[in-house]
Amino acid sequence: MIITKGYAAQNEESGLAPWDFQRRELGAHDVQFDITFCGVCHSDIHQVRGEWGNSMYPMVPGHEIVGRVVAVGSEVHKFTVGDLAGTGCLVDSCRVCENCQRGLEQYCIKGNTQTYNGLEQDKKTPTYGGYSNTIVVHEDFVLHISDKLDLAATAPLLCAGITTYSPLRHWGVDKGHKLAVVGLGGLGHMGVKFGVAFGAEVTVLSTSPAKEEDARKLGAHKFVVTSDPAQLESVKGYYDFILDTVSAEHDYNVYLSLLKTDGVHICVGAPPTPSALQAFSLIPGRKSIAGSSIGGLPETQEMLDFCAEHNIVSDIELIPIQDIEQAYERMLKGDVRYRFVIDMATLL
Amino acid sequence: MIITKGYAAQNEESGLAPWDFQRRELGAHDVQFDITFCGVCHSDIHQVRGEWGNSMYPMVPGHEIVGRVVAVGSEVHKFTVGDLAGTGCLVDSCRVCENCQRGLEQYCIKGNTQTYNGLEQDKKTPTYGGYSNTIVVHEDFVLHISDKLDLAATAPLLCAGITTYSPLRHWGVDKGHKLAVVGLGGLGHMGVKFGVAFGAEVTVLSTSPAKEEDARKLGAHKFVVTSDPAQLESVKGYYDFILDTVSAEHDYNVYLSLLKTDGVHICVGAPPTPSALQAFSLIPGRKSIAGSSIGGLPETQEMLDFCAEHNIVSDIELIPIQDIEQAYERMLKGDVRYRFVIDMATLL
Repeated sequence: MIITKGYAAQNEESGLAPWDFQRRELGAHDVQFDITFCGVCHSDIHQVRGEWGNSMYPMVPGHEIVGRVVAVGSEVHKFTVGDLAGTGCLVDSCRVCENCQRGLEQYCIKGNTQTYNGLEQDKKTPTYGGYSNTIVVHEDFVLHISDKLDLAATAPLLCAGITTYSPLRHWGVDKGHKLAVVGLGGLGHMGVKFGVAFGAEVTVLSTSPAKEEDARKLGAHKFVVTSDPAQLESVKGYYDFILDTVSAEHDYNVYLSLLKTDGVHICVGAPPTPSALQAFSLIPGRKSIAGSSIGGLPETQEMLDFCAEHNIVSDIELIPIQDIEQAYERMLKGDVRYRFVIDMATLL
Repeated sequence: MIITKGYAAQNEESGLAPWDFQRRELGAHDVQFDITFCGVCHSDIHQVRGEWGNSMYPMVPGHEIVGRVVAVGSEVHKFTVGDLAGTGCLVDSCRVCENCQRGLEQYCIKGNTQTYNGLEQDKKTPTYGGYSNTIVVHEDFVLHISDKLDLAATAPLLCAGITTYSPLRHWGVDKGHKLAVVGLGGLGHMGVKFGVAFGAEVTVLSTSPAKEEDARKLGAHKFVVTSDPAQLESVKGYYDFILDTVSAEHDYNVYLSLLKTDGVHICVGAPPTPSALQAFSLIPGRKSIAGSSIGGLPETQEMLDFCAEHNIVSDIELIPIQDIEQAYERMLKGDVRYRFVIDMATLL
């Protein structure tokens, strides 16, 4: 077994503290890479604190993982020692269901294996995530990372990046489309960057006028303060797509009124409680409200390659792992531009 | 002006009673046809009784109208006297917006003209519907009706038919797809017929086991009692599409759980109050909930031609117009298989 150092929560009230654990010895198809950086996702907080009711402890969070390969199994052909490598939210899936066969491992019908707070396909061995110094992953779930990009700022692409890239690609957001992004956080700021890169006219919709300067720096063409009725009225029926990254309660009907005929409101943020939906918000314009979850492995590699080609990374704040609880508190206040990334050198 | 006999509501409490009114003299592009049959839509009840807050009185309801042409304007080329003709929910639209240009007059951005309880494009002249003996409509909003079909049973195609045909076509329901239809009323029974005609495997989802025999007679391949947890569990993640015709309150999240990845829940019924929607019902399978409203003129003609070719009509109960209030009461109890149609010969 491979002795691994990490930060773990021991229960829902413990918070995170150093914890040593073991990873499996390399199988023939496994890649081991030492973790250089790990992004901090909002879902880390929810799961560490047991807020989704599915937490397994001890829990080592982290699913925006980048580093450098230190060992490969005997049958590994896609990676060699010294390569940059990354792993996102998934480390395995059933591989045989129709979704896995289509490269949609995120929708594995039999149940995929989450990178942490999950179980391996044996349905009993727990997985431990990227708040740690090294990781062992089947090569099919390891991604190539370009050396053209800032490595720390690349880490959040593995979750925040693919979560926004995938739906924009799936619904065909392109030149000539009008895209609104709701919520300018870790996901939203990537949505703006991808929307702009795909050629869409991008608007940031926000309750806070203070975010306009940042939105425009990220490339947004328009900024609409949704708490101003006149501004909201000016974009009624205007958008082809809305990418909704907000996980606090909000009124979908208001946003649906901003879509044109056949417009799609795409939820990638999930409020904790149900929202009231009027069928009449959908029917008179053949509108849709849809959801999307991360992306499959082929598309995640495509996204990383696209980012390398177009020089797209996340805007990050690098932190030592000892500051993780403080980072969580700042995230809960929306005080991060736009993603914390842990410098894993601080762990050792 | 053309003296017309009809049945009208004078206010939201009056109910319907005989009322004479005038229709415009034929313009160059107008078609006048004498009404043989008019279907009775649930929306007639809501509007007659002022339940949607948009009612204008006197109101002559009816938007499932078929009959025979008795006069045509000097520039009318598509119809001649003696032709069968029909008109649905629309009698005009702006004709210049991008939706009208695409033949999606139902989504006219400037506001189309509803066949009754509407205003002409002058935005001041009221429209009166099909509970009457004759009607004058611009030829672009008059449809050809085949003489191969039972004429009375054809009337409901103009609303119930196109409302279900259009979304099934738009979302591409086809051979190999699994389609569930929720609600076996005027809309639902047409949804079953079209789904079967398009080659899909059709299930009727119902709270009432008593509807199974009827569902199968209409062509449904499967029947699932949604109040039986075991039956519901057996179709989790099973459907590509759900056509939801129910306008009473119901829980969308339950139905969304029956969709497979990329499945679409299509609302053509609109409950009066909002429904609670969980984003987590959409996200883990990239599912959508969408709405659809009737159909445009080109597609309505396409639907009528399809019905003529495939011998599809509504299942109806023919009534004299004097029984209309009794029919409304029966409709409110769900006691109609599946659409009342008024024999307009009883008016005179």
